[in-house]
Amino acid sequence: MTQTIILKNRPEGKPKLSDFEFKKDDAELNIDDGELLLETHYVSVDPYLRGRMSDAKSYVDPFEVGKPIHSLVIAKVAESKNENFSKGDYVRGMLDWKTKQVTKGEELTKVDSSKADLSAYLGILGMTGLTAYCGLTEIGKPKEGETLIVSGAAGAVGSVVGQIGKILGLTVIGIAGTDEKIEMLKSKFGFDAGINYETTDDMKSAIADAAPKGIDIYFDNVGGPISDAVLFNINKFARTINCGAIAVYNETETPESISVRPFLIKNSASMQGFIVSNYEDKFPKAMKELTTWLNEEKLTYSETIVEGFENIPQAFIDLFDGKNKGKMVVKVS
Amino acid sequence: MTQTIILKNRPEGKPKLSDFEFKKDDAELNIDDGELLLETHYVSVDPYLRGRMSDAKSYVDPFEVGKPIHSLVIAKVAESKNENFSKGDYVRGMLDWKTKQVTKGEELTKVDSSKADLSAYLGILGMTGLTAYCGLTEIGKPKEGETLIVSGAAGAVGSVVGQIGKILGLTVIGIAGTDEKIEMLKSKFGFDAGINYETTDDMKSAIADAAPKGIDIYFDNVGGPISDAVLFNINKFARTINCGAIAVYNETETPESISVRPFLIKNSASMQGFIVSNYEDKFPKAMKELTTWLNEEKLTYSETIVEGFENIPQAFIDLFDGKNKGKMVVKVS
Repeated sequence: MTQTIILKNRPEGKPKLSDFEFKKDDAELNIDDGELLLETHYVSVDPYLRGRMSDAKSYVDPFEVGKPIHSLVIAKVAESKNENFSKGDYVRGMLDWKTKQVTKGEELTKVDSSKADLSAYLGILGMTGLTAYCGLTEIGKPKEGETLIVSGAAGAVGSVVGQIGKILGLTVIGIAGTDEKIEMLKSKFGFDAGINYETTDDMKSAIADAAPKGIDIYFDNVGGPISDAVLFNINKFARTINCGAIAVYNETETPESISVRPFLIKNSASMQGFIVSNYEDKFPKAMKELTTWLNEEKLTYSETIVEGFENIPQAFIDLFDGKNKGKMVVKVS
Repeated sequence: MTQTIILKNRPEGKPKLSDFEFKKDDAELNIDDGELLLETHYVSVDPYLRGRMSDAKSYVDPFEVGKPIHSLVIAKVAESKNENFSKGDYVRGMLDWKTKQVTKGEELTKVDSSKADLSAYLGILGMTGLTAYCGLTEIGKPKEGETLIVSGAAGAVGSVVGQIGKILGLTVIGIAGTDEKIEMLKSKFGFDAGINYETTDDMKSAIADAAPKGIDIYFDNVGGPISDAVLFNINKFARTINCGAIAVYNETETPESISVRPFLIKNSASMQGFIVSNYEDKFPKAMKELTTWLNEEKLTYSETIVEGFENIPQAFIDLFDGKNKGKMVVKVS
């Protein structure tokens, strides 16, 4: 039996379980020459998928209503009539939210389960790590001794950004939403300081206290009021990497904020919208550095693994309540 | 007699005449060795001076209450005991709002009244031209065939930005606040299209109509709601030069806008706060190109010349009501 998750409706505001539909199909899957039968092992759920569920203009085409959702997936080759892949290989690719599927193997890459856990290839050695590395180095242009602040710091990307910041000699401050996360940022990921936005009344002052020399680089995963508070603390020539805006993805009205423009002008500061796919030419160098740092134990990661294909929609929804620590992954089999 | 204009109070909101005070002094001015006596001929009034009248953190120190205001000035050397300058030379520099003053000649540059009108050295061959050139080329990184939109397009900087855009092969759209200005943008400065924001209800649609291929470069002199409307029309990899925010300089509350962040992320777009003084290494090339284009009559400029030292404060205030066409200059003698 094959199970599939379909986009039933475009979500309004925060996604609900009723926006998703499960379909079951008992037909046997057969493969032709050049094809592979894949069994899904791990499914990546990511905030950016919310954008693809809307029909607004964006950097990727929206998902179609009535069609399967897809994201980055680790699968095992169950059968192969494709010379590039053998039965038993593990592969990674943008694949449908299905328990099994047939593909031609295009744009799949093999992953080596002996070098890292399979789920790591969805995280620290996948889009998460590449996003953190490319965003921080290419847009942030860090110089030793500068101060980096990261919002969504306990999230998948944020926790890696902070660690790379420390490796590169920065002072690193993380913003997250529970004391437990703040403690983890400092003890597990080596952040210099953390701010719990849920228990802090005056974020502007809290950031000023945590960053006495001001903010040179802001890696922004959240948008929203936290990012406004950062603006009051930026230094001349500050760089903001606009990587995510999870705080406003679910808003049905056009979200408002304080005007960033006077802050940018006063400080000759920049903001740059970032998606990792614009930096594919940097991926080989990034993968090499990330793998080296991982093997040297300079880099660690956390992940929240939810079990069961049927829990993919809820795991996705939980991202917007900050229920994940680090990369959110669903283990299917 | 020497007249001086003092900052009497820090303005709240829009500056008023009562924020300025005139002082008269009958003492004769004498010069020592190394010094010059200068007679003020032209005074530049510019929106950025509003920022210096506040005590908020900015890229330059605020003016002091009770002290003279200063800005870029063209003066004539009335007496010289400095070997670098002779009586009769015309010079340009950051000088006090005084009818006469004594300086040591540091950071003064001579200007050649035979190559251009003296007032041009406050505008197209001064900060105005350099701001337009450096902002558009260094941050805008224009590529032939792209679409440029300019806010405050009939202002000093805006009208030069648009003309340079045309020289570089761009489609150029200007936004201004009267039909007369829009007509001037097209007939005098060669803009492809103009939008009168005062008579347009839906700026978002008006921009879409004027820029069917979308906006690649936005040279922003105004900030505020006009800039929000531009955001809805930006293309992938769009660049915004945040040069001015005249629409919000006078606001006493922190101004709000729609959140730019989702737009930047969706379009991998950037915003960069800009002040021309960060680009001094580009000035020689810029001056050479601007002078060439001016002599080839590819570049023209307009200026609003107000007569009389006593009218400097009102001329400055009038900037915020859009009463100038092109560079606003006060002719003192």
